[in-house]
Amino acid sequence: MTENISVLGLGLMGSALADALLSAGHHVTVWNRTPAKADPLIAKGAVRAATPAEAVEASPLVIACLLDYPSVHEVLQDTPLAGKTVANLTTGRPGEAREAASWAAERGADYVDGGIMAVPHMIAKPGALILYSGSSAAFERHEQAFAVMAEARYVGEDAGMAPLLDLAMLTGMYGQMAGFLEAAAMVTSAKYPLKEFTTDLLIPWLNAMAALQPDWAEKIETGDHSTEVSNLEINRAGMENLVRAFREQGVKPDLLLPMKTVIDQRTARGLAHEGLSGLVEELYN
Amino acid sequence: MTENISVLGLGLMGSALADALLSAGHHVTVWNRTPAKADPLIAKGAVRAATPAEAVEASPLVIACLLDYPSVHEVLQDTPLAGKTVANLTTGRPGEAREAASWAAERGADYVDGGIMAVPHMIAKPGALILYSGSSAAFERHEQAFAVMAEARYVGEDAGMAPLLDLAMLTGMYGQMAGFLEAAAMVTSAKYPLKEFTTDLLIPWLNAMAALQPDWAEKIETGDHSTEVSNLEINRAGMENLVRAFREQGVKPDLLLPMKTVIDQRTARGLAHEGLSGLVEELYN
Repeated sequence: MTENISVLGLGLMGSALADALLSAGHHVTVWNRTPAKADPLIAKGAVRAATPAEAVEASPLVIACLLDYPSVHEVLQDTPLAGKTVANLTTGRPGEAREAASWAAERGADYVDGGIMAVPHMIAKPGALILYSGSSAAFERHEQAFAVMAEARYVGEDAGMAPLLDLAMLTGMYGQMAGFLEAAAMVTSAKYPLKEFTTDLLIPWLNAMAALQPDWAEKIETGDHSTEVSNLEINRAGMENLVRAFREQGVKPDLLLPMKTVIDQRTARGLAHEGLSGLVEELYN
Repeated sequence: MTENISVLGLGLMGSALADALLSAGHHVTVWNRTPAKADPLIAKGAVRAATPAEAVEASPLVIACLLDYPSVHEVLQDTPLAGKTVANLTTGRPGEAREAASWAAERGADYVDGGIMAVPHMIAKPGALILYSGSSAAFERHEQAFAVMAEARYVGEDAGMAPLLDLAMLTGMYGQMAGFLEAAAMVTSAKYPLKEFTTDLLIPWLNAMAALQPDWAEKIETGDHSTEVSNLEINRAGMENLVRAFREQGVKPDLLLPMKTVIDQRTARGLAHEGLSGLVEELYN
């Protein structure tokens, strides 16, 4: 079904989203603070809006992909939103999304917040994922349009949930990246071919270790951190050895040190018999 | 081909290794400081040695799987080793392995060092991997026996290489685990079902991100850290946002903070246009 959809914000990501919607045959109206950024989309059939209000007026569904949440408020503050659906795909924090949802509700708009798990060139290609949270009615109404930009997954009524899970996935990525960087420094310090190490050894190992995460998740959900395989005492000794090996090799173990600190901390509480999953308890305030 | 093989050290891992060799039909002689630990293996056909010297005497190939390298030296110090092959699968650091290789060479023994990428119950099952380094002649001579314990991979003449790559893989795992724990704390703080998050969202994402590591490796090998996708300026802002979201959610971002520090540090050097791979340069002394 062809829809009228407006896209506010034509950075790399906003442009990719608008382009995907156009390619799928939707009637797309676009607005950007710097109008020239709309030119390639206009050439492909998009309609240029002179103001945000004009863009909002043009379509029942308004997708915002702006610099940050303050920009969203600024761009939409003087625009009537009653009866519209705002899909805010701007990157932000859960608290900002919840605020934006209340703000939209006060103006009579339906609101969904989105967390984009992709870089712009992945949009409309396999592997791209956008998480949505907020109004389930709005999500269902526009699910088909959302699906042309990326796999669309609804994660709950709490508008903050999509950005929260988005940030949690990024967190997982930064941890994995930190481990990769430390491993890479160690391997290159010994002049072993890094690409070979990465492809033949590290990636299969990381994939095997990731496959254990549902078990870790279950331990965290039940609070039963017992283990028969690798308790904190073993990990404490292993980490000690690791850090010493890094220093002997002339590599700084900085990215690993807080993991060591948390293991030491948990062990000092007399919980050396627990597994690594128990460390999560040290992360709550 | 059936070989005579001696195994020194019958902890969980040493016992699993000896058991795998016995099951494959080898003549296995075992020694352990506490003799009772040998009983299950004796029941399966292993021969008990009363002393380390007796065990070494019995076989051309001696596999050591002891508490640490000082234990290896202590157990073997008064034992003639000339003409023997010592495969030291004890967990240790690269420097310790190199020392042990010299020490063995002085005594006329061939030496290979091993890094075991498995927990005991994985031994002799698919997925278990042991890295070997040191004498390639010794590795080739005993490769078939090694292969019954776990996939056997030779990584070079430098005896320190197997433990070094082993530690690098553990490093990758600890990074991935740190990211998982922080993500898990975030997700549970919002009462989203953690196992669902892990299975449906995090694991596919981490596997997709791990698939990019060969590209990161190539950038590190060539020193070309340019990027068109996600430079340090974007990551610096993203990390800032992430840390703030953690604090707003009542979760400590401690395990992520050094990644933030290193990104800030690299950015402050005027390298904000580089990608994350450039961070490795901050890890060398």
